[in-house]
Amino acid sequence: MFANDPALGVLWSGDHIFDGIKETIEMLRSKGKRTVFVTNNSTKSRAEYLKKFESKGISCSVDDVFGSSYSAAIYINRILALPAPRNKVFVLGEAGIETELGSENVPFVGGTDPAFRRDMTQADFDGLADGSALDPDVGVVLAGLDFHVNYLKLATAYHYLRRGAVYLATNTDSTLPMNHTFFPGAGSCLIPLTNMTGTQPLALGKPSQAMMDAVEGKFHLDRARTCMVGDRLDTDIRFGVEGRLGGTLAVLTGVNKKADWEAEGAVAVPSYYVDRLSDLRGSGQ
Amino acid sequence: MFANDPALGVLWSGDHIFDGIKETIEMLRSKGKRTVFVTNNSTKSRAEYLKKFESKGISCSVDDVFGSSYSAAIYINRILALPAPRNKVFVLGEAGIETELGSENVPFVGGTDPAFRRDMTQADFDGLADGSALDPDVGVVLAGLDFHVNYLKLATAYHYLRRGAVYLATNTDSTLPMNHTFFPGAGSCLIPLTNMTGTQPLALGKPSQAMMDAVEGKFHLDRARTCMVGDRLDTDIRFGVEGRLGGTLAVLTGVNKKADWEAEGAVAVPSYYVDRLSDLRGSGQ
Repeated sequence: MFANDPALGVLWSGDHIFDGIKETIEMLRSKGKRTVFVTNNSTKSRAEYLKKFESKGISCSVDDVFGSSYSAAIYINRILALPAPRNKVFVLGEAGIETELGSENVPFVGGTDPAFRRDMTQADFDGLADGSALDPDVGVVLAGLDFHVNYLKLATAYHYLRRGAVYLATNTDSTLPMNHTFFPGAGSCLIPLTNMTGTQPLALGKPSQAMMDAVEGKFHLDRARTCMVGDRLDTDIRFGVEGRLGGTLAVLTGVNKKADWEAEGAVAVPSYYVDRLSDLRGSGQ
Repeated sequence: MFANDPALGVLWSGDHIFDGIKETIEMLRSKGKRTVFVTNNSTKSRAEYLKKFESKGISCSVDDVFGSSYSAAIYINRILALPAPRNKVFVLGEAGIETELGSENVPFVGGTDPAFRRDMTQADFDGLADGSALDPDVGVVLAGLDFHVNYLKLATAYHYLRRGAVYLATNTDSTLPMNHTFFPGAGSCLIPLTNMTGTQPLALGKPSQAMMDAVEGKFHLDRARTCMVGDRLDTDIRFGVEGRLGGTLAVLTGVNKKADWEAEGAVAVPSYYVDRLSDLRGSGQ
């Protein structure tokens, strides 16, 4: 299982794919290993992710990709399983979430609906206060990275939560690494809701074990024979350790270095590490 | 000094002014007391507040009103006093903040500028990452309640903070009481910045003593002969207690009740209380 977040360093960094990645993945597959790519990015659907892999020359099918939006859709439909029609989801997020909810036939409102991409009006204040602007079937608020976050969406999501909707997040990363710097991440788009309600969302991305359960449920993998590969201790390696996988492999081409897990109080310690993923191909190649 | 937040209960609740308020204020003034109204609402300027008082039949001058936006403007100009031109402020907030910064001749960008009321583009990501979209003179980010909060404003404010701008808030109330319910408050508009930077803003509203210093600096009041009147223990009464005023008076027409300060671990205990402000006029009236 490979961590694969945008601009982070397992397979690529930004638009630059690391040397030997394609050959390493082919080598693993030739030995009969199943490769699954697990990402916390919620803005892209699996189909969109697939395009990124193909543009890098890595052959892949949509089933090889597991994103936090898909994880959330599976959680809502198969684990939470609220009785219809009270299983409708109010989405604070982008199209990737909507696509994955659709793939599990979960009804939703909000999201990219242009009706929510506007200023708050007095009628909105009135309608949220008296409930007439709320859909009585909404039983879940699912929040993630939303490049179109605004006051109307936050106020609407808050009022659904006040009425008892389940509070879920695709992930709670505070920042989004892009252009060699950082921008507001999913966790920063949704933290106003956490602040207003005094309640933390259940996060469906790494290192949440709700995501591990969803991955296991889909692939029927044998945890003892599965290795989590990643560059971040706090998400990737912790995800594998807490999921009691057979192994965890840190790669040093991304966020964390060896000193990070050798330090006292390290958030997670990998069972193995390589300088770069292509080292798995061994010497002499 | 009177707490006077919208929809809260010292003078009025929503559009309803309590009985006898006008007469009580006139009685206090006839005895030579100076009345100052202190509010955490940052969206209205003092001049706009004045209109609300006049609509309720309470005579008042702009100098009788002290808002968190005005407090912030005074703090930036007179206490922080960054050398020009590095004293420019990026505003995450509404027109009230701009008006008060203008009253202290503090230069600003952002705020209600329509250039920031739009979707984030790739050019914005590029320009914030390389700094070309940032004004080199901005040395302060001042955040408050913003009904037009969006990803572009949050990303821009964040990049100013990354470059070392001072992080200020008009106030950090998580919710805004309106229509007998709650909506996102200033603290919920700005908490994404706190989450991304890992830094708390200096809040200029009650109970911050930076506001008390600004009030004292303006009115040259004798703290020992000043009484803070309010309905909220965590902002109003705490503001007066920590400011070592001669007294604090709780009124029971708003948020907190007697049981709240009699409870163990109460955030602040008033020196006096009345059921309603008009009780100050005494019996027989």
